[in-house]
Amino acid sequence: MENGVQKWRFKGNESITTASGITVRGVLNMLMENLNPDDEKQILALGHGDPSHFPSFRTSPLAVDAVVDALRSFRFNCYGSTVGILPARKAVAEYLSRDLPYKLSEDDVFLTLGCTQAIEVALSALSRPGANILLPTPGFPYYEARCAYIDLEARHFDLLPEKGWEVNLDAVEALADENTVAMVIINPGNPCGSVYSYEHLQKVAETARKLGILVIADEVYDHLTFGSNPFVPMGVFGSLIPVITLGSISKRWIVPGWRIGWLVTNDTQGILQQSGVVESVKGFLNISSDPATFIQGAVPHILDMTQEDFFSKIIDVLRRDADICYEKLKQIPCISCPHKPEGSMFVMVKLNLSLLDDILDDLDFCIKLAKEEKTIILPGMAVGLKNWLRITFALEPLALDEGLERLKAFCQRHEPKSIGNGW
Amino acid sequence: MENGVQKWRFKGNESITTASGITVRGVLNMLMENLNPDDEKQILALGHGDPSHFPSFRTSPLAVDAVVDALRSFRFNCYGSTVGILPARKAVAEYLSRDLPYKLSEDDVFLTLGCTQAIEVALSALSRPGANILLPTPGFPYYEARCAYIDLEARHFDLLPEKGWEVNLDAVEALADENTVAMVIINPGNPCGSVYSYEHLQKVAETARKLGILVIADEVYDHLTFGSNPFVPMGVFGSLIPVITLGSISKRWIVPGWRIGWLVTNDTQGILQQSGVVESVKGFLNISSDPATFIQGAVPHILDMTQEDFFSKIIDVLRRDADICYEKLKQIPCISCPHKPEGSMFVMVKLNLSLLDDILDDLDFCIKLAKEEKTIILPGMAVGLKNWLRITFALEPLALDEGLERLKAFCQRHEPKSIGNGW
Repeated sequence: MENGVQKWRFKGNESITTASGITVRGVLNMLMENLNPDDEKQILALGHGDPSHFPSFRTSPLAVDAVVDALRSFRFNCYGSTVGILPARKAVAEYLSRDLPYKLSEDDVFLTLGCTQAIEVALSALSRPGANILLPTPGFPYYEARCAYIDLEARHFDLLPEKGWEVNLDAVEALADENTVAMVIINPGNPCGSVYSYEHLQKVAETARKLGILVIADEVYDHLTFGSNPFVPMGVFGSLIPVITLGSISKRWIVPGWRIGWLVTNDTQGILQQSGVVESVKGFLNISSDPATFIQGAVPHILDMTQEDFFSKIIDVLRRDADICYEKLKQIPCISCPHKPEGSMFVMVKLNLSLLDDILDDLDFCIKLAKEEKTIILPGMAVGLKNWLRITFALEPLALDEGLERLKAFCQRHEPKSIGNGW
Repeated sequence: MENGVQKWRFKGNESITTASGITVRGVLNMLMENLNPDDEKQILALGHGDPSHFPSFRTSPLAVDAVVDALRSFRFNCYGSTVGILPARKAVAEYLSRDLPYKLSEDDVFLTLGCTQAIEVALSALSRPGANILLPTPGFPYYEARCAYIDLEARHFDLLPEKGWEVNLDAVEALADENTVAMVIINPGNPCGSVYSYEHLQKVAETARKLGILVIADEVYDHLTFGSNPFVPMGVFGSLIPVITLGSISKRWIVPGWRIGWLVTNDTQGILQQSGVVESVKGFLNISSDPATFIQGAVPHILDMTQEDFFSKIIDVLRRDADICYEKLKQIPCISCPHKPEGSMFVMVKLNLSLLDDILDDLDFCIKLAKEEKTIILPGMAVGLKNWLRITFALEPLALDEGLERLKAFCQRHEPKSIGNGW
């Protein structure tokens, strides 16, 4: 007590406020607050990678049945183990080995709460005082948020729009120093919709080897490709350099709410073991929460038994969506798209502000779009590129079409008066 | 490359190794490695609070059906929200309000991955450079592990075995200084099986108010009481001091593998809001993983509809188990039990090493017990009390009886030769 007023000695943690200020969720929540409640139109969300509520993107009934069976067996109400239950780890090892020139073992696999926790684990396991990590711009801001929270310095290399958003490897070499521990690639690309060729991934591996760093390959959108490049896992270079692959069933099975993913070491030489990184991964999982045990229990059945026609149906919708999106965007003068998306659920497009009258920047654009059109698009600033937009095309095709029409109408309404209405 | 040898610049994170060295999981895993694979006896685990695989502790079919229904509705495959989905938060607020003199709102409730993540969030939200927190000894070592990882200084007050493991409030006052932010109580008690009276909780609240700190009330074993004291939530003092209550459905519904819990602010004066703690909680959840959305979707039905006879059946088994345990332990001279358990799933007992021949300490005792008897008990060092044991009595009564018989035979075999075999 001081002068009769109770004094309290606790307060909030400011480092959390700083770190959490830059997530996609945070920006999208803010945009949602700008929707006009009197507007009776349907909200159209072209802002995030979760089409699970659209009929065309409904998950496989087989996956649902697998979870129900695991739950009804009463065998998985118990705590899991630190690294995930053995049958699930074996199943992930076999599933990923199908695309690799060598076999992964269950000891390479650590189950996580979706890819989100896999990112948290990877960054935390590699952090040490003074260390830095190389992240792509544009990228996925959860990496920046976690780096800020654990005080791991983030350095940014650019992706090259004119080269299909390939990594600028000269920039990577220029950024790295003796305290650099890893570089991150996201392939298929979020937010760019890019899919890297074998040749480009090989160059990434060679650069990482030259620099003595490992590659964290965020492959949460694995196999969601519909252009000319097939999906190639970074792990194919696991004998040249150590690769930590992050993935999940969230995107391919369209179940982001199930929270099951993995961190996998692709490292035929055992360098991650020798350097203590594997021990740090295990240690971090030992002081972290696990995925629900019965969902882990369903993983073997889901990975082994899902039929090809479920996957190909999803790919067909995504391809059609990407086409709709690319063609519609061409009709909007203030927006340019440097590269047609070939994978994931996103495309990055550039805003030409000189063709807009009363728009300050990408954030202002997205706030006004939310207010006027009840349509959500992610401003590029949220993924590191100011005055760009990240558009999600993974919607029911009719909803996507409607959302892009609203975008077009919005841009038309905001074109400079001197240009007139003639486009 | 240096002299033709590839040099790598990354290594493991030593602070993780330090922090994760002291968890219950870690110690139990180590004990499991000491089991004799040639011994065909059943493993009897009296080491951890997870009786979910015993028939007497099978969860309510209603709870399972609620999860299946949520999953089959296809409404909950999507990402959740940062703080948990609204219907689930409302349901938790109503559920906990039943035992409080005021009503909680959904804004007081944050859903977490079991109580484990609730602990992580609470400690992280309160941490700041130089801050310290007061933890009970004996206690639950996940608190110490998380404090070590985030560099929050842990100071320890003792619980008083001769007073039913009540908090030594003189010790609390002696430890606190201007950098103390909170004290933790675990009630019903892990590892002591204690249940605090209203009067004792009131004294805890008054002490915390005097010191200007908040109380973190770990109530993961809420309502699991079978002695003379009923369960009283710390939140009843939420108008005197800010209380952060941590809980989950893991223990009362015997589903620890479902990973759903909560962090709740009991704070009628809004002090946690004003001091920025609530913002830090939200910020931390914004950069963390969520519980599976469909399990969140099942929470309202589980909390509202579970019948009293499910709970009373579980309490009856626990009461019977506690009786068996207390009576059997009396027959073992080298073990003394200062307080019969009245709640949770555990009892703390003291080892008298002078009545054992070739046992160095509690850890040595538990390793040899695992080797010789295929029976797991947690050494007291894991919960902060050297040369004590934490015994879990929440087993199928027959299995508990068998486990305690093995413990008795082990102690008999290791008694000093000079005493002879006469007990």
